[in-house]
Formats: sequence, C-alpha cells, structure tokens
Amino acid sequence: MWRDLAPVGRDTATRGYRRYAWTGADADCRAWFREQAESRGLTYELDRNGNQWAWLGDPTAGDAVVTGSHLDSVPDGGAFDGPLGVVSSFAALDELRARGARPSRPLAVTNFGDEEGARFGLACVGSRLAAGQLAVEKAHALRDADGVTLPQAMERAGYDPDAIGPDPERLARIGAFVELHVEQGRALADTPHPVGVASAIWPHGRWRFDFHGEANHAGTTRLDDRRDPMLTYANTVLAARKKARLAGALATFGKVAVEPNGVNAIPSLVRGWLDSRAADEDTLATVVARIEQAATERGGRDGVRVSVTRESFTPVVEFAHALRDRLGARLGGVPVLPTGAGHDAGILSAAVPTAMLYVRNPTGVSHSPAEFAEEDDCVAGVTALADVLEDLACQPTTSR
Amino acid sequence: MWRDLAPVGRDTATRGYRRYAWTGADADCRAWFREQAESRGLTYELDRNGNQWAWLGDPTAGDAVVTGSHLDSVPDGGAFDGPLGVVSSFAALDELRARGARPSRPLAVTNFGDEEGARFGLACVGSRLAAGQLAVEKAHALRDADGVTLPQAMERAGYDPDAIGPDPERLARIGAFVELHVEQGRALADTPHPVGVASAIWPHGRWRFDFHGEANHAGTTRLDDRRDPMLTYANTVLAARKKARLAGALATFGKVAVEPNGVNAIPSLVRGWLDSRAADEDTLATVVARIEQAATERGGRDGVRVSVTRESFTPVVEFAHALRDRLGARLGGVPVLPTGAGHDAGILSAAVPTAMLYVRNPTGVSHSPAEFAEEDDCVAGVTALADVLEDLACQPTTSR
Repeated sequence: MWRDLAPVGRDTATRGYRRYAWTGADADCRAWFREQAESRGLTYELDRNGNQWAWLGDPTAGDAVVTGSHLDSVPDGGAFDGPLGVVSSFAALDELRARGARPSRPLAVTNFGDEEGARFGLACVGSRLAAGQLAVEKAHALRDADGVTLPQAMERAGYDPDAIGPDPERLARIGAFVELHVEQGRALADTPHPVGVASAIWPHGRWRFDFHGEANHAGTTRLDDRRDPMLTYANTVLAARKKARLAGALATFGKVAVEPNGVNAIPSLVRGWLDSRAADEDTLATVVARIEQAATERGGRDGVRVSVTRESFTPVVEFAHALRDRLGARLGGVPVLPTGAGHDAGILSAAVPTAMLYVRNPTGVSHSPAEFAEEDDCVAGVTALADVLEDLACQPTTSR
Repeated sequence: MWRDLAPVGRDTATRGYRRYAWTGADADCRAWFREQAESRGLTYELDRNGNQWAWLGDPTAGDAVVTGSHLDSVPDGGAFDGPLGVVSSFAALDELRARGARPSRPLAVTNFGDEEGARFGLACVGSRLAAGQLAVEKAHALRDADGVTLPQAMERAGYDPDAIGPDPERLARIGAFVELHVEQGRALADTPHPVGVASAIWPHGRWRFDFHGEANHAGTTRLDDRRDPMLTYANTVLAARKKARLAGALATFGKVAVEPNGVNAIPSLVRGWLDSRAADEDTLATVVARIEQAATERGGRDGVRVSVTRESFTPVVEFAHALRDRLGARLGGVPVLPTGAGHDAGILSAAVPTAMLYVRNPTGVSHSPAEFAEEDDCVAGVTALADVLEDLACQPTTSR
C-alpha cells in the first residue's frame, strides 16, 4: 500500500514531494485512495469539496467514527506528513478485521483535499469549505502563482467548482474524528513513547508584508539616493526572529517574491510572508504587532512604504477533552502534546468532537524530504489507531 | 520612429519593458531595427552573434565610425536604457544628411544583442562574443530561469547557435565606436549641460551567495532547532550595505531565489545575487571579501553553510583618451563622468577606440519605468552625436 503511493509526485532531483491540489500528482493520489477503498469493499464517496471518503457500514446511519488525513504536500515535502495518517487508517481497518472486531457504528477513512495550501496559499481548503469556514466567493477568488484560479484548476481536473460549499449534513453524520499524523517536532523523540495524543493546536496565521521601494540601477544609483526595499525586508526578517524569541513564540519568513528580481536592479517591491504562532492569541497578536512596528520604523529610514495584510488566521484549537481523555486512557498514559501546526482535525473540531494521535519523529524534521518515522513506530501508530477505533466504534469482544 | 518602438515588450500592468534576449519582444525590436535601416537605404547586416548593423557606405572599407547601443531591457525596465542610443543613432544619420555632410569614412548603426543579461544572467553577451570575451562553450551552457539554454532559445528564434563566436574581422573594420546612453545617475541633473562624455566604467561583478540551511516546518520547529538560511541572507543584505558605504562602493542584493519558498516552510536554500562596483578593482575586491566574511560568520551562528560563486567580472574600463578628448573639444567643455554601469562600449573598448555620450536624466532613475529624459535633452543628444560623427567621419563642409 505504502509502496504504491511512494513514487507519486516525487521530484527526482530533490527527492521531495510536490503533490499540489488539482495537479496530476494529486489526481494520482486520489486514484490510489479510491483503489484502496474499493479493493477493501468499502463504499467510496467523493464529496462536493473534493474530499474523499471510504465507508465501512452505512454512511447515512450517523454517529460515525471517521479517521484520515491528507495526501497533498508542501513544495518538496516529506513522505509522511498526511499520507501516514491515510495509510494508517486503512491499515487500522485491516487490523480491526484481523481482530474480528464487530463495528457497532459506521467507520470511514478520509482524504481531505488541499490541506497544505501549497498551491493557492490557504491551508485546509477541503475541510474549511465543508465546515463553512471558507466562503465560496473567497475560495473562487484563490489564485496560484501562475494566475490560475481555484475554479479553473478544479475544472481542468474534472471537478465542478460551482458545487463547493458548506456540507453540514455530511459533517452531522460524524460522531468523532481522529487524525493520525507524524509528529512535527521532537517532543516524543526523547521519550520511550512511539505515540502521543494531541492537547491543542496553537493559534497561527499568515501575514503578507509588502515593502514598496523604487526600482533603480544597482550600478549607478548612489546609496543615499536609493529606496531599497530589500534592506527593509532583511531587517524585518531579523526583527521577527528577535520578537518571537522574546515572547516564546514562532515567527518565520519562508517565502519571498521580488520585483523585478534582476541582479543589477534595486527592487521596486519585496513581498515577504510571515508565518507566526504562539501558545495563545494575545501573545501571537503582540508578536506580530511588534514585527510590523519594526518593519515600519526601518521602512521610514529606508524610504520604503510597508503594508501588512493578514492572509489567514486560525484561532487556538482545544481538542475535545472527553475524547482526548478516552484516547489517553485506552492507550495507557501516553504523552499529551500541543502543536504549532494546523490540521484538518483543527478545522473540524469546531463542528465535531475531534482528536489527534502523533507518531514519533526521531529528528523532528517535517515539510522536508528528511521527514521520517521508524517502521516500528508506524506500526505502533496503526495499532494505537486500531485500539482507538475499536474502543469507539466496536462491540466489546469476548477475548478482550 | 520612437513611437513605433514604444509599445514593443511593454507590460500593460507595470508599464515596464520586458524585452529579453531571443523572445518575441526581442524579435519585434529586431524587426523594427531592420525596417529603420532599410527605409533609409542603409545596408542591413546580421552578424553571427545576433548583433544588427546598418551601414552607410561600404561595410568592408575599414576605419568605420560606428554608433549604437541595444534594444533589450532589464525586467520592467524603462524606455530609454538602450533604445535612446539606437534611435539617436538613426536620428543623427538623418541630421547629417539634412546638413548635407559628406562622409569620408563608412558609418554604421548597431544594435548589440542581450546587453542586459536579464534572461541568461550574463550581460553584454552579443558584444562579449564578438570581442572574444565570452567562450563559446560558456555561452552554450547559459540557461534561463526555466532551464532553456541559450542555444535552444536562439534556435527557437530562428538563429544558428553554432555560428556564435569571436568576430575579429568585423571588429577590425571599426575605427571608432561611440555609444550614446541615458545617464543612470544625477551627475548632469544639477548642471546646465544636457550631454556629458564618459571617462571610465567602474569595475563590477556579480556574485551568487548560496545559503544552505535545513527545510523544516515553520509551525513546529523550535527556534533553537532551526538552521534557517533566510536569517543569514537577511544579515548579509544589511552587511553588504554597511561594507559598501564604508568603502565608498556600491553593493546590492536585487535578486533572490528561495527553496522551497513556502509560507510555512523554513527554507532549505536561499540564493542571493550580489552586484558590486567600486572606483578601482582593489576596493571592489576588499568590499566583496568583507561581505563574504560577514556572511560566513553569521552562517556559523545560524548553522547555515555559505558558498560564494563569482558569476561575472568586468575590469575597470578607461575609455580611449584621445577620442574622449576629441569629443569633449567638439562639444565644448561638457562634463566628463565615470559610471558604475556596464555597456557594450566597455566590452568593445578592449578592441576598438571607444567613447560614450550621456544624456541628462532629471531623476537619475534607471532600470525602471520611471527612467526619463526630457525631449529637449534627447534632441541635444542627437545633435551632439551628429556633431561627433560629422567631426570623425565627414569631410569639412564649406559652411562650417
């Protein structure tokens, strides 16, 4: 199962994955999902927002226990972020069957579309749309780096962009959602535990900083005559790190676009995207305000105008306490961890009791080809997920 | 003449020019040049390196006086850099005819190909090839941002890439080369002189700084666990400005490429291109060494490996003193200026006595849509160029 999926969308040079929403690699991942569903005799469904479902039992019966994750990737992402959750979900169903478990509630595996937001700049588009957390008009206005809109991309992939939108009936069928994910840090790495349970997702957001200067010749313009936005950008990158460190938060400039981006041209415009996260929303707001202030102050000295646009914001997510505690009890005292990463589980938690399991990552590296989990730990993850699904959705067996 | 050329390769959004070598816009500019030549009854020639020539008199007679510039642009460049020299050259020939001047030497107008190097990263490719300052194998290995090689681009444009190379016979026909160019600074702006004469071109070069870090998740990786090359890049941008200021030199980072360039991904690699220039080669070498040292020191603290590659270097150019003095005398005490910008005239000066005229630029802005010269100053430039050509290439007329 893992082997079939491994080569899809992998760049031969970087060994990283480039599985972006509504591309050929994405279509290949989706075909793989459907095949996994049908080969197990599960009922396959594609919802109006491009999310895939594989049902064991009656999809319409209600109070279902759903597990899954996503198959798309960041640019040059690793093999585990997303796919480990989907593959483990199918493997956990196999494990339940092998145990002879008798489901008393419907079970389903899902693949949420466009979780990473690598192509259109907004994460968790599939789950946001379903949960009514992304307006259809906003989704229709999303554009990739080549100017292709989300509706155009969906149409080219054979999907109907006019069908997208809130899907409360589908979400109302779900009694609990559990997402398994590779850990994206080193909290489990130094413990004897291959699996942990999520407590909360830090609030986080993306802010676009536009630094407007004046294009000019790099070889003839005196330093004093320049309005060079690259200087203001550079100073802001360093300020962001300092402000985040002081507040115990995270702040990263990982994406830049420069105009005209010529070696011998002072830029007219530098755009930098800030990703920032903190344990609570007040701290996050303070850190971002301080970075913005530092940018504006330096811009004043450089003759550069700075404008800041919040492109996305996700409030703090506290996973359902009862469900979290039940998982913790079933798995026997595993670590309970917060994370700075957004997930479909975080989106769904507003509508559905939701929980997450993390599988240990020895290096903590993620969003990179170096992302990794030991095979034994992946197996432990499948076992834990099967335990949880059995506990939530199956009748007690005599042997247990 | 100017009106026909104005819309070619102009971006409707930025109002800047995007006339890159061997593109459709470049072909349109070349068609315009040929039309200008043929409509005047001049002998049109295209040389093996893609440079265009329009001859008044016998091209093979030798000791010719040649004037011209280039028609390509930087990304979102202005209307004057290059085209003003070519248009003024044709206009100066018209002026000579109107004066009834009788040429005693062959005269030619040229358009040198790919002066800006916007597409393949190396400036003055057409003149460098002709002058034997760029090896054919090196030119054949040039690649644009999409991976298209120079030979592929030439073939697609209908040119033979195997024909390129040194063209000493053609250069041997030239007795003097004069390039007229819009000034790329404000040295003339505060004087009563619309036209100046060039003294020298500062030595300059391009260095690629590769900052190698480790890709990771921006939302989950602790600050202390990061190896973020964006920090090292940012610090180097600020260091470059400081080191240049201290040495009275110029240093600019105007072009950046980031991998993977995702909002929520710490980059694995940031590439920044340094353009640096100074009055002499020792100062330039010192400034670049200090910037490299600052980058390496900061990289050590960030866990980022820095490597620096010199992509191009042009030594100082002193224009031919006798020719320069003759122009100055003919034009009557106009300012004599150095510049930090490279030009085809600088390349040719190694093989041919070469001079440059500058036309006043009120803002000093260049390589930008805001680049400008007053119409009166452009006319003064044509008159000055006609005066110079008449002085160099025509028999004394009785009226003068």
